Amino acid sequence: MAFKESDVLKALSTVDDPDLKKDLVTLNMIKDIEIFSDTVKFTVVLTTPACPLKELIKNNCIDAIHKHLDKSLSVEIHMTSNVTTTRNDGPILPGVKNIIAISSGKGGVGKSTVTANLAVALKNKGAKVGIIDADIYGPSIPTMFNCEGEQPEVKQVNGKNLIVPLEQYGIKLISIGFLAPADNAVVWRGPMASSALRQFIADTEWGELDYLLIDLPPGTSDIHLTLVQTVPVTGAVVVTTPQKVALADARKGLAMFKQPQINVPVLGIIENMAYFTPAELPDNKYYIFGQDGGLNLAEKHNVPLLGQIPLVQSIRESGDSGLPVVMKDDATAESFNQLAEAMARQVAIRNANMEKTKKVEMNA
Amino acid sequence: MAFKESDVLKALSTVDDPDLKKDLVTLNMIKDIEIFSDTVKFTVVLTTPACPLKELIKNNCIDAIHKHLDKSLSVEIHMTSNVTTTRNDGPILPGVKNIIAISSGKGGVGKSTVTANLAVALKNKGAKVGIIDADIYGPSIPTMFNCEGEQPEVKQVNGKNLIVPLEQYGIKLISIGFLAPADNAVVWRGPMASSALRQFIADTEWGELDYLLIDLPPGTSDIHLTLVQTVPVTGAVVVTTPQKVALADARKGLAMFKQPQINVPVLGIIENMAYFTPAELPDNKYYIFGQDGGLNLAEKHNVPLLGQIPLVQSIRESGDSGLPVVMKDDATAESFNQLAEAMARQVAIRNANMEKTKKVEMNA
Ligand SMILES: Nc1ncnc2c1ncn2[C@@H]1O[C@H](COP(=O)(O)OP(=O)(O)O)[C@@H](O)[C@H]1O
Ligand SMILES: Nc1ncnc2c1ncn2[C@@H]1O[C@H](COP(=O)(O)OP(=O)(O)O)[C@@H](O)[C@H]1O
Ligand SMILES: [Mg+2]
Ligand SMILES: [Mg+2]
Repeated sequence: MAFKESDVLKALSTVDDPDLKKDLVTLNMIKDIEIFSDTVKFTVVLTTPACPLKELIKNNCIDAIHKHLDKSLSVEIHMTSNVTTTRNDGPILPGVKNIIAISSGKGGVGKSTVTANLAVALKNKGAKVGIIDADIYGPSIPTMFNCEGEQPEVKQVNGKNLIVPLEQYGIKLISIGFLAPADNAVVWRGPMASSALRQFIADTEWGELDYLLIDLPPGTSDIHLTLVQTVPVTGAVVVTTPQKVALADARKGLAMFKQPQINVPVLGIIENMAYFTPAELPDNKYYIFGQDGGLNLAEKHNVPLLGQIPLVQSIRESGDSGLPVVMKDDATAESFNQLAEAMARQVAIRNANMEKTKKVEMNA
Repeated sequence: MAFKESDVLKALSTVDDPDLKKDLVTLNMIKDIEIFSDTVKFTVVLTTPACPLKELIKNNCIDAIHKHLDKSLSVEIHMTSNVTTTRNDGPILPGVKNIIAISSGKGGVGKSTVTANLAVALKNKGAKVGIIDADIYGPSIPTMFNCEGEQPEVKQVNGKNLIVPLEQYGIKLISIGFLAPADNAVVWRGPMASSALRQFIADTEWGELDYLLIDLPPGTSDIHLTLVQTVPVTGAVVVTTPQKVALADARKGLAMFKQPQINVPVLGIIENMAYFTPAELPDNKYYIFGQDGGLNLAEKHNVPLLGQIPLVQSIRESGDSGLPVVMKDDATAESFNQLAEAMARQVAIRNANMEKTKKVEMNA
């Protein structure tokens, strides 16, 4: 053939990643080019394991090769992914690519449910995922992963004690709930809780992770400050239900992350418990908690809406029984899969376009 | 007539208050006895404005007079009430008869909704009621009483600044939400929030109240300790929804109040969002969040179940629009009225049978 690797790259530099708004070559997404007599092979390394644009990008690559090189070429593309990161220095969590705060203004809006299902959905798409359950007012992750009463092990590495996260359904887990028996009324004084969170971040053996999700307590509290002061946070997701009293609290959460001295990018808003549909009336939607509250909030604050999840009894049942609903194969699972795609996409966009988050100084 | 006041009292001493398990005379409930030729008049002072046993007690009094004195007598009874108290000393809140902590393990279970509707229901039955909204993670009382953005006045009394509660629908209100504008991301450090609560209790002009309801943040936190360390609490009500993750947190709340050094009597459990019934299918109950979870918790811990409130869109709408649903005249309002009766009854029982709560010492 009359062309070289540089010709292939030139052709592919006409293909943009629609999300990242740059071409695949500039984004360093093309690897392992091999040129044969009538075939070109290469790998496209996407930035999320759950890219909804995968097929589109693949087809655009084939078209570009045909247009710029030779119409008759056979093009073999291996689509893979490598989650991007803006965290590549610092002694804390060196192997963790993205730290995502899952937050809410109000309690009970489904933060833990979303965290659990996002984690499993991302893992099912090939990502390495961990969860820190830092909700001192109601650590639900042990229940939602059916590992209540278990205790993480502690091991010595270079004379230092390291907590070893539990592993369930392929997700590494640590929960403030593991520190106290279920019926025990531990009154978490702010400083105690903050020091537990610091341990979970700095003294836990997380290894390599694409996404570490942090299930935060509701509101804007000591724990939030501790998080941003301990480690740079890639982005925050705000979960809300549609009613006014929840939105009011969600707005406060948005405002907190946007404060100049905190400055954590908001990846998007998730509207949960959006409506209820009884099995007997499949066409009815009951907006018990209000209609489109999360959507309107997202539009007003110019933040992506990652998804609207309906109120479904099986979501609650799965939470109570410790088997996240996304592990099933139904419409509800699909809504969480789409949510995971949307979030991973926003992480990739954020990593491509924004500066890395800075750790907040202690006197902030 | 051949009988005297002491004969009337003797006759009435055969009538028990079924709740308080003592007779009306011992309970000091009989006042203003007047004896005429063919008529006896007296007043029965019940211990709650919302006594569901009012008619029963009245009829039992008439029967006792007829049986022990004279069958032909006409008996005129004035039923009234005087809410009891075990708080009658101490410099803080001298005019407040009962301080009730409305708590929950989990957030979003309906603590504020219950607080708002209980307050209005008790007031409608003649009680003087106040609310302290101490939920730093989501102060919803201003929205639920349609007084967002208002500011309580401060006045000087004997050189000391006193906060004057707002008054809405006849309820005196103070909220941590009045201290920060809605969109402002105040990060409440534990000590700041605790000192705000202390001010609401000690430096606020509450005057005379039968019930001061405290809408607490979810969980077991600094704020809970501050409350019991600032003032003796008459009793606590635990609000929960039926699912496992909520019950787990509710159990922790129960355990906290029962800790020997805190020792606040639990007046009862309220199960909220018990089931959903679509208007089109009035016979169906959808147990979206589980069935009878609050009931089972109450039975297991030997605590009264004060009521089960269904999931009803108008409850949420009323919360968002700032007009508590109990102000309407429908089945949902009735369920909150019954809840108020049940709570007031437990307060009376508690005051009759138990020692007064002690303030918790600071080093507890
Ligand atoms: N979309 C949903 N449909 C039905 N139940 C839900 C849904 N989202 C959450 N739940 C249930 O609601 C309760 C609150 O959710 P949770 O994730 O614990 O909230 P948070 O972590 O914000 O307190 C849980 O019992 C959960 O199972
Ligand atoms: N029984 C109910 N039916 C429908 N909506 C309810 C019910 N109880 C509470 N809600 C709504 O659920 C949300 C959470 O209730 P809220 O009282 O704010 O909980 P909390 O104070 O425990 O956080 C509010 O929007 C409220 O209007
Ligand atoms: Mg949670
Ligand atoms: Mg509330």
